[in-house]
Amino acid sequence: MGDIVQALDPLFNPQSVAVIGASNHWNKWGNSTFASVLNHFKGPVYPINPREQEVLGRKAYRRVADVPGPIDLAVFVIPAPKVPAAMEECVAKGIKAGVIISAGFRETGEEGRRLEDEVLRIAREGDLRFVGPNCMGMWSAPAGLSAYMFALPSMDGPAAFVTQGGNVGGSLVVSAYGRGLGFRHYVSCGPAADIQLEDYIEYFGADDGVKVILAYIEGLADGQRFLEKVAKVTLQKPVIVYKPGRSEAVAKAIRSHSGSLAGSDEIFDKAMKKAGVLRVDSPEELLDTAIGLLTQPLPRGRNVGIITGGGSYGVICTEDCAREGLEVPELPAMSIEALSGIFPPRWSHGNPVDPAGDRNFIAYYLAPRIVLELSEIDALIFMGFGSLAGFGDILDKTRSTQLFIHRIPEMLSNLQGLEGLADVFAAALSAGDLAAIRAMTEPVLPLAAQFFGSDTQTLERFNEILFSGAELRRTLADTVRSAARLSSRGDDALPAILELLDDLISALLAHFMKTYKKPIVSTTFMEFPQVIKGASYPYTTSAKAVKVLAKLVEYREHLERQGAFIDPLQVCALLKAPAGGGGMQESEIRSQESE
Amino acid sequence: MGDIVQALDPLFNPQSVAVIGASNHWNKWGNSTFASVLNHFKGPVYPINPREQEVLGRKAYRRVADVPGPIDLAVFVIPAPKVPAAMEECVAKGIKAGVIISAGFRETGEEGRRLEDEVLRIAREGDLRFVGPNCMGMWSAPAGLSAYMFALPSMDGPAAFVTQGGNVGGSLVVSAYGRGLGFRHYVSCGPAADIQLEDYIEYFGADDGVKVILAYIEGLADGQRFLEKVAKVTLQKPVIVYKPGRSEAVAKAIRSHSGSLAGSDEIFDKAMKKAGVLRVDSPEELLDTAIGLLTQPLPRGRNVGIITGGGSYGVICTEDCAREGLEVPELPAMSIEALSGIFPPRWSHGNPVDPAGDRNFIAYYLAPRIVLELSEIDALIFMGFGSLAGFGDILDKTRSTQLFIHRIPEMLSNLQGLEGLADVFAAALSAGDLAAIRAMTEPVLPLAAQFFGSDTQTLERFNEILFSGAELRRTLADTVRSAARLSSRGDDALPAILELLDDLISALLAHFMKTYKKPIVSTTFMEFPQVIKGASYPYTTSAKAVKVLAKLVEYREHLERQGAFIDPLQVCALLKAPAGGGGMQESEIRSQESE
Repeated sequence: MGDIVQALDPLFNPQSVAVIGASNHWNKWGNSTFASVLNHFKGPVYPINPREQEVLGRKAYRRVADVPGPIDLAVFVIPAPKVPAAMEECVAKGIKAGVIISAGFRETGEEGRRLEDEVLRIAREGDLRFVGPNCMGMWSAPAGLSAYMFALPSMDGPAAFVTQGGNVGGSLVVSAYGRGLGFRHYVSCGPAADIQLEDYIEYFGADDGVKVILAYIEGLADGQRFLEKVAKVTLQKPVIVYKPGRSEAVAKAIRSHSGSLAGSDEIFDKAMKKAGVLRVDSPEELLDTAIGLLTQPLPRGRNVGIITGGGSYGVICTEDCAREGLEVPELPAMSIEALSGIFPPRWSHGNPVDPAGDRNFIAYYLAPRIVLELSEIDALIFMGFGSLAGFGDILDKTRSTQLFIHRIPEMLSNLQGLEGLADVFAAALSAGDLAAIRAMTEPVLPLAAQFFGSDTQTLERFNEILFSGAELRRTLADTVRSAARLSSRGDDALPAILELLDDLISALLAHFMKTYKKPIVSTTFMEFPQVIKGASYPYTTSAKAVKVLAKLVEYREHLERQGAFIDPLQVCALLKAPAGGGGMQESEIRSQESE
Repeated sequence: MGDIVQALDPLFNPQSVAVIGASNHWNKWGNSTFASVLNHFKGPVYPINPREQEVLGRKAYRRVADVPGPIDLAVFVIPAPKVPAAMEECVAKGIKAGVIISAGFRETGEEGRRLEDEVLRIAREGDLRFVGPNCMGMWSAPAGLSAYMFALPSMDGPAAFVTQGGNVGGSLVVSAYGRGLGFRHYVSCGPAADIQLEDYIEYFGADDGVKVILAYIEGLADGQRFLEKVAKVTLQKPVIVYKPGRSEAVAKAIRSHSGSLAGSDEIFDKAMKKAGVLRVDSPEELLDTAIGLLTQPLPRGRNVGIITGGGSYGVICTEDCAREGLEVPELPAMSIEALSGIFPPRWSHGNPVDPAGDRNFIAYYLAPRIVLELSEIDALIFMGFGSLAGFGDILDKTRSTQLFIHRIPEMLSNLQGLEGLADVFAAALSAGDLAAIRAMTEPVLPLAAQFFGSDTQTLERFNEILFSGAELRRTLADTVRSAARLSSRGDDALPAILELLDDLISALLAHFMKTYKKPIVSTTFMEFPQVIKGASYPYTTSAKAVKVLAKLVEYREHLERQGAFIDPLQVCALLKAPAGGGGMQESEIRSQESE
């Protein structure tokens, strides 16, 4: 793999960049592309434009030959017929990498293909490797490089993404940004005249900062080469692919878009499975699946436990599991008994576990332990209470409801003046002083139980879990401190409190996940945008959550067939916390593991 | 149908309500249910509670018999074993309708079934019809009645919804609220011991305020009765159903949830199709499809034109169309020529129509006319530029990009002091004084063209469309006035301006839709929550948009097979504008049609 790393290094880690066709006319791509590079890149950036003295305040050069210093990367934003001559000049200048954004090559017919062949010949002879043509550009976080047609909301992260569709790629990067997922590398490669999709994937495979790889593929120049290279990568990290092409109409649309020839989809599908590639059915599933792999352990098998805030959620989830080949097995009598100990008699007495409208919400968070400790259960789907913050706006509009959640500001206002006490409690939590923690909580248990509509026994059991891990105690200490600060704000504090509760729920799920080394996929059944919180991400629908779980199973099964070493927490534990989010840092997880 | 209307009138239009089990303890459902009724209902509401003098400030009664005035509707929030006696008292009091929220009936086994049979017997003998048991309650907009377990965000609207799953129902109502879709009636019916699903649907069918009917079904007591009744309703308005039950595991989960027996899914599926029921594959599709039916005309056939802001969007959409049995036919040479007249030479020269990164965005909005006027094309999918407001937050974070959209505040600030001129122009637009409008626009065309990266010819053609309908001129006048007001606010005005542009785009699409009487389904490829704007609703994915379009085709084909009268605009034109949104009122549409 050393070859590809060396070959693509000038592309992903350039020290200097020229933008050929950089423009002052803001309605030209040469303007927004140049601005996009300027936004992020710390090294020298040279606008190349024969008719301007300056572009966006930078001294312009007629040709790359006129630039005094060395150039590592050239970005082309000029009409296609002008690219060959410019490429000659780049080669003469000793430039080793290019991004050809210009369109008008093979996708336009014979003449375009000749032009593309010429560009490719010149680059090959000059040892210059390039992205594109007819693409939107690329992003490389380590280099601070955004050689893209416009400024993307960019965030460093554990994913890498290569796409033959710039628009669908850009949409997914924006959508991922909203969810708290960042990209270490993102390449819109167009028809991939020079560097092939498998080359990018091989490069991402060799980068330790990349934990999961995404690809949108329209056509491959050499399917065999792709499969061979990618099969090696999937042994180290997951590769998720969306590739349309199941109909003749699609093949035609692809030819006119990227000029690629789509082969037999059925053969390709089988070969991809053999290579361990996780193929998904829509662009959005690329993100859903990546987030699942980054936040969850790999399940040992296909047996799913479902805990649901509503019977109908459970029914729908069971249907989705059946569709994806996952099992929803019966629970042993012992577990039924244990669950009967925390839920009212009307609970479902089976899997899906449904408390049937129990208002003792605390009990709901005891149930995962009872289900996850079963060796018969490989994964948990946790439904209906996965996220509160997204729900905040709606809750605000229905304030008059008497639901538990609305009493929290009232409770907090009762606690005014107790900030000092909260600090003492938080300190005890942070220090892990269990005796002190219990001494402080036991006297207030009856009051708290009454408030939560719970009972002291349930609360005691819940506390036992809350106090059992360093990570959980730390999150709880943060929650207590923040809640004390919010205590004076009354109703206005509700959104912030919902955020705190989400963080606490997320920490609890992470605790269960790491204790039992089993995935816990959650769903909200609410189409509000969700954000990754450490080890937890609530999918908006049951179907999405179940599809992701099925992909985790598929990946685990592939690794097992290949005799690869499997650490269930290997991928998931390495998700970086989104900026400002409640996620965990890698170091924290390591320390948690060694507790 | 008169029978069902009469029978269910006390339920959907009660004059007085009693809540049996109303409670002051805020962690009981009897509290949140009573609060939910109090929130909305204008008539007398009586709490029934033997241990309280008052509940939430209202005088409490030990039994319904003690209530001085008449009671139309009784809501039961007491333990199941107490329901029969309470039902006896209701019958004795002459109450004609009930909502039994209490759980613990047939879903818990033999004993529960006996209890349910007893309640049913008492109610039947007393001529009392009831919702439930084991349900979450109901909402009826005309009555201002929310007899629900907690306060739902409630908005009157053109949909009616009956669900055997309270939680999934509540989730969808909340989700619909976020999208700007309201419900005239919403019933969580549980296992439907008394009033059957088909009864509700028949009632909704007879209510002229209901334009589309949604149902979540787990099991039917009498499938034949259901099909017969619903087949009549589908001739008047669409009925959309989600019904899980394709696996044995699901059948089991359903038994434990609602106690229903699921029959053979395959037979049911065929029978539903024959009855004209639109069956969807997930709960979310109930809303997607309802919105499609409420905002779009019915297409004459399966031939789809695709106009896309990106080649890969077009490829994915073509794939989705193939999957749903929709055709993406070639365009005639004449249209290719017309499109070549507005797009740069690199455009896709076919269907999907892809300008291939043309920065003359104005041209993009000329293309729909060229495609829609073809008799070969039955529907349009408009991709990638469907909504800007949801994108606002992201755009804000990438302000440094030099995209067109960011120059709007700059342009506006150049217009400062021109508010008076804007008013004159808006007045000319409102008056439909075309000569005055042209006299004012022609001198500034070259400047505007330069600004938009367009040319005067394209702008002239665009203006021709903009000025051609009263509705469009009205929206444009509003836009001009609002933009003038925003002119002093500079960059801060961007979110408001994006909203204005969305309204204008929506009005433009509505204009095309009504001119050609063909559906225009749009997608954003961005998973931001979208809001209905009059006749336009941008779906977040291509797959969703295409599935909805396929359902429109399915409904049209059913009506044709049945020889029913088809007005393509019949359903769509009646969508009420969401509060505060940019939607159209029915009266406006009528006047627009008669222009």
